[in-house]
Amino acid sequence: MTNQRVLLASRPVGMPTESDFRIVSGDLETMAAGDVLVQVLYLSVDPYMRGRMSDAKSYAEPVPVGGLMVGGTVGRVFRSNSPQFKEGDIVEGYLGWQSLALASAKNLRLVDPSIAPISTALGILGMPGLTAYFGLLDICKPKAGETVVVSGAAGAVGSYAGQIAKILGCKVVGIAGSDDKVKLLTDEFGFDAAYNYKTVTNHYAKLKSLCPNGIDCYFDNVGGAITDAVLGWMNTFARIAICGQISQYNNTQLELAPRPFTQILVKQARVEGFIVTRYFERFEEGRAQMAQWLKEGKLRYRETIVEGIENAPKAFISMLQGGNTGKMLVKVSD
Amino acid sequence: MTNQRVLLASRPVGMPTESDFRIVSGDLETMAAGDVLVQVLYLSVDPYMRGRMSDAKSYAEPVPVGGLMVGGTVGRVFRSNSPQFKEGDIVEGYLGWQSLALASAKNLRLVDPSIAPISTALGILGMPGLTAYFGLLDICKPKAGETVVVSGAAGAVGSYAGQIAKILGCKVVGIAGSDDKVKLLTDEFGFDAAYNYKTVTNHYAKLKSLCPNGIDCYFDNVGGAITDAVLGWMNTFARIAICGQISQYNNTQLELAPRPFTQILVKQARVEGFIVTRYFERFEEGRAQMAQWLKEGKLRYRETIVEGIENAPKAFISMLQGGNTGKMLVKVSD
Repeated sequence: MTNQRVLLASRPVGMPTESDFRIVSGDLETMAAGDVLVQVLYLSVDPYMRGRMSDAKSYAEPVPVGGLMVGGTVGRVFRSNSPQFKEGDIVEGYLGWQSLALASAKNLRLVDPSIAPISTALGILGMPGLTAYFGLLDICKPKAGETVVVSGAAGAVGSYAGQIAKILGCKVVGIAGSDDKVKLLTDEFGFDAAYNYKTVTNHYAKLKSLCPNGIDCYFDNVGGAITDAVLGWMNTFARIAICGQISQYNNTQLELAPRPFTQILVKQARVEGFIVTRYFERFEEGRAQMAQWLKEGKLRYRETIVEGIENAPKAFISMLQGGNTGKMLVKVSD
Repeated sequence: MTNQRVLLASRPVGMPTESDFRIVSGDLETMAAGDVLVQVLYLSVDPYMRGRMSDAKSYAEPVPVGGLMVGGTVGRVFRSNSPQFKEGDIVEGYLGWQSLALASAKNLRLVDPSIAPISTALGILGMPGLTAYFGLLDICKPKAGETVVVSGAAGAVGSYAGQIAKILGCKVVGIAGSDDKVKLLTDEFGFDAAYNYKTVTNHYAKLKSLCPNGIDCYFDNVGGAITDAVLGWMNTFARIAICGQISQYNNTQLELAPRPFTQILVKQARVEGFIVTRYFERFEEGRAQMAQWLKEGKLRYRETIVEGIENAPKAFISMLQGGNTGKMLVKVSD
């Protein structure tokens, strides 16, 4: 059986290009006991992968040049040497950018297709959903009536985080990169207000007008000038969850800005970075609550789906440039 | 009776000068029921007062131009219209830069001179001691064996914070502004290592050599390039208490530096600013523990005492420039 795989061809400088990837075909290794052969149906492309393409020290090992691109997948069990899974089961696993994968049963999770479309196992009921859930509830800890600002609000994590804040009774303001996304946030996702950062030059003035009571919580996916402005308008005891800094990932040199520490001191603010894996022990709690809210119609989601594994690099680059609305996915097989 | 008072004459631009203050003599108002007349013995000068001299928005109202400089004092009750205090009692209160003060009994706290010299009510058993206690225990939460870095380590708060971290079983590294201070930290206060920031250009390399296991906690009184370097060498789940940013208070324009948020994200660090008043309900707990440690010989302290209220501006400016070792005090009366 032939497997299509997307490898890292070279470490990108700045924004990745398609030439930084290489698509190869090849045979699979032989299955061992406990192995499961998975036909990949959906592949997730996420901002954190930009970090894995770089060899700068980070919280996880970089992908080696020539190595398989890492990432979450949902697939169908094609053959199983494990009693845990049977042919036809839908599974989620961190199997990388490939069309077929041999995986240990212990690294796969059974997906129940009766709860929601299986693609949600990579979105609202998967890692991005858990990121929004724990980042908002555990780091921001918003109280009803507080003002919550979300950057990257029309992306997967941002759109979930803002909706969870609404469920908690907060006033929610989103920042996104197009007028259509802004409309989606207010008309479909129930945000109280939103604005298009590409058409605003003075973020501070804009935030002041949309958040007349100041900012209590900030769920940050973006960083840069937007985050600088939020810090200038935060309330005493503000809580800031640093979930992503997508505006900075492709910088070839560090941007300079006024240091935030005096503002953090004077406002007694708490700024905390987090990676969702730290909540591993609580994933089932998070997934159950997200599924419940989804069932109750309290959460909505969007997906941007690109067809064909050969288009995964294009999808990834587009996502880094804000080309997605909601979760960006690559459909690998029917 | 004549009262000497130090007023704010003008808002300083950059480092304050003596001409920003004005010393006046005048009569006291008439005592009302419940009032206590206090003869001030010691006056505290602290970094936070620089903020009060400015009209930039902060957590407390600025001192008006022409108004009395604010600050903590220890004094002797000269006359009392309150059943709570009697003549000769030693009291602590936020009475400002003056030699005599009328205060409401409810704003005074009785000081027990049998525990420690009364000047400690403004230092290790006062606001700076409580700042070190709560900032370290409640914000940094260091565990035995972890590495704790303290900036401004030979100042009042820094010297206490480092010693508390030693009591907790941490490895403690201090940063201070002279070779004598560095010697004091290691030889008298039990720090494991210390360095003079004025003779080091590469803070990152220095911290790396003194903290081979990385930095778990940072108690920051200083900010600027030192803090930038600490963030580059912190461990996963590092905790940073922003207590002061004295290197920045006299800047006439904001310094630019690389934004710290990507480091905070990747290291899942928590950066929190705090003002000790938020722990008001727990002050007695903190004071009792600090007094206990002091009695047991586990905490030591130094004071730099300037004589005469007319020298209070000079003492304050000297403290901003690092002229103090330990707590800076002005002795107003015997």
